[in-house]
Amino acid sequence: MRVVIFGGAGFLGKRLANELLIKGGLSSGPVNELLLFDKSIPENFITDSRVQCIEGDFGDESVVRNILTTSPDLIFHLAAVVSGEAEKNFDLGMQVNLNASLSLLEICREIELKPRLVFASSCAVFGGDVSKPIVDETAPIPRSSYGTQKAVIELLINDYSRRGFIDGRSLRLPTIAIRPGKPNEATSSFVSSIIREPLNGETAICPVPIETEVWVQSPKSVTFNFIHAANIDESELGGNRIITLPGSTVSVNEMVECLGEIGGELATSLIKWEPDEFLQSIVLTWPPHFNVARASQLGFIQDKSAGEIINVYIEEEGPFK
Amino acid sequence: MRVVIFGGAGFLGKRLANELLIKGGLSSGPVNELLLFDKSIPENFITDSRVQCIEGDFGDESVVRNILTTSPDLIFHLAAVVSGEAEKNFDLGMQVNLNASLSLLEICREIELKPRLVFASSCAVFGGDVSKPIVDETAPIPRSSYGTQKAVIELLINDYSRRGFIDGRSLRLPTIAIRPGKPNEATSSFVSSIIREPLNGETAICPVPIETEVWVQSPKSVTFNFIHAANIDESELGGNRIITLPGSTVSVNEMVECLGEIGGELATSLIKWEPDEFLQSIVLTWPPHFNVARASQLGFIQDKSAGEIINVYIEEEGPFK
Repeated sequence: MRVVIFGGAGFLGKRLANELLIKGGLSSGPVNELLLFDKSIPENFITDSRVQCIEGDFGDESVVRNILTTSPDLIFHLAAVVSGEAEKNFDLGMQVNLNASLSLLEICREIELKPRLVFASSCAVFGGDVSKPIVDETAPIPRSSYGTQKAVIELLINDYSRRGFIDGRSLRLPTIAIRPGKPNEATSSFVSSIIREPLNGETAICPVPIETEVWVQSPKSVTFNFIHAANIDESELGGNRIITLPGSTVSVNEMVECLGEIGGELATSLIKWEPDEFLQSIVLTWPPHFNVARASQLGFIQDKSAGEIINVYIEEEGPFK
Repeated sequence: MRVVIFGGAGFLGKRLANELLIKGGLSSGPVNELLLFDKSIPENFITDSRVQCIEGDFGDESVVRNILTTSPDLIFHLAAVVSGEAEKNFDLGMQVNLNASLSLLEICREIELKPRLVFASSCAVFGGDVSKPIVDETAPIPRSSYGTQKAVIELLINDYSRRGFIDGRSLRLPTIAIRPGKPNEATSSFVSSIIREPLNGETAICPVPIETEVWVQSPKSVTFNFIHAANIDESELGGNRIITLPGSTVSVNEMVECLGEIGGELATSLIKWEPDEFLQSIVLTWPPHFNVARASQLGFIQDKSAGEIINVYIEEEGPFK
């Protein structure tokens, strides 16, 4: 089968690509061609005869149309302007996260054999009253433009699927932690920073109070869940293609304690507590408590604890110091 | 103040216009100019020196932009491709209900003094499991393209309002009954037909089983609610500009009984029971039970009963025979 990953050179896109290559296939057949599309892709990004890398602008309809002339069987759509950037640059967020995503759906509609599409949505579609737990039936009332744009595309993927134009699935991703590398423009970036930077002997800024709780999932689990979403049969999903992934509720305090157990006071002292009004205005509206039975019933997986999430990171990215 | 009604020559648009003219103003001031925009407007539609009628295509951005050069203080957006038509003609529904509505928001964003915008959304944003009552927190999972397009614009109006580009309010309209005139392409058109046509001595087709329940509101109440929506202060709405109007749950059977009480067996015998698969595939996914406290708290009104709804119709449109 032919697989395309939009956003294929991003952190999650690369993990997903590698996992697909290791597995060799999905429930519907072996992966013969894997096309990775992103705005820039390092040389020798992934060396595998099945992989082709194409650089381009996801916002350019003709570029996306050109990619899809190969009539892929499966598309992962991870291309996005991240939350902080979409909040600061409204037009760019609308252009990429909404208009270009809608354009992708329209191009998919032209493909004769309807492609399966796995869309990286976000738990940032929720916002507001953080005291009530989110259940599968809770209405998304985003408190960010990023969350709004994701919620819009989820609705459209449901309708395009209902009409038989595509076979879509939207996964609402929790905050992904711990991300390796550098901080990015995601408003949740600090969740990774406060562990990653101290383990590297560097300072990190925590912009929210220590009692703040977040809803997180490890890169390992989310990669499993992306592939699982691609493997589920359409008949299992019924009329709703939206799945809120089963993250874990973790407080900043718990994360700092786990960091202390591993790196001692030296590590925790590297966290600088600097409240940031802009980040708080978004992050503190994300509900950290969920009761999402549907994802578990459908076989999506969850991390066990903050400790496990940090240990997985150390295992994968360590050793440190 | 300057007021624009997109869809101003439609049944609700005209009622709203007349009501505004009778009232003479809103909480924020007198209505000095009332611009009615629609694709076609009869001659001498409303004769009032404050009224200007403009015909045009809501899907044409330049036309809408031209209308908004007057920098209106208040905009009612009732322009839409109705549910049945949007289901049959996907491209047209997307063009008008989604793209042109988004374009309207973008043009509003350019207006220096942010306009108040009242959007006619629909309870068709809900669908699926009709056994559970809809509450204010229930996620819209539309089972029609029309419902999807309305749900998308609601989300965008929330975000455009949050960002201060507009001061928006989205009203989720129940099925409006009883509409005078002719049946239209709305999938709910039969709800009016089964009362209106027999009262006129004509046959009507009921495409759903007699035990079917619907969530309805009278034209009189919905017109009140539109004006009420325009009068509410922004501060009362908080972060969520979406209001599910308080309709009434009425069964087809109840309506037929009320019709019988008024018109006797002669009237009820004019209803032909002809199941329609297409209409049922949409109408029977509309939940008829709601528990929407927020609208009542905000002062929106509800009809008392099926009898009242029919009697209001007879009062306004009769006498019959």
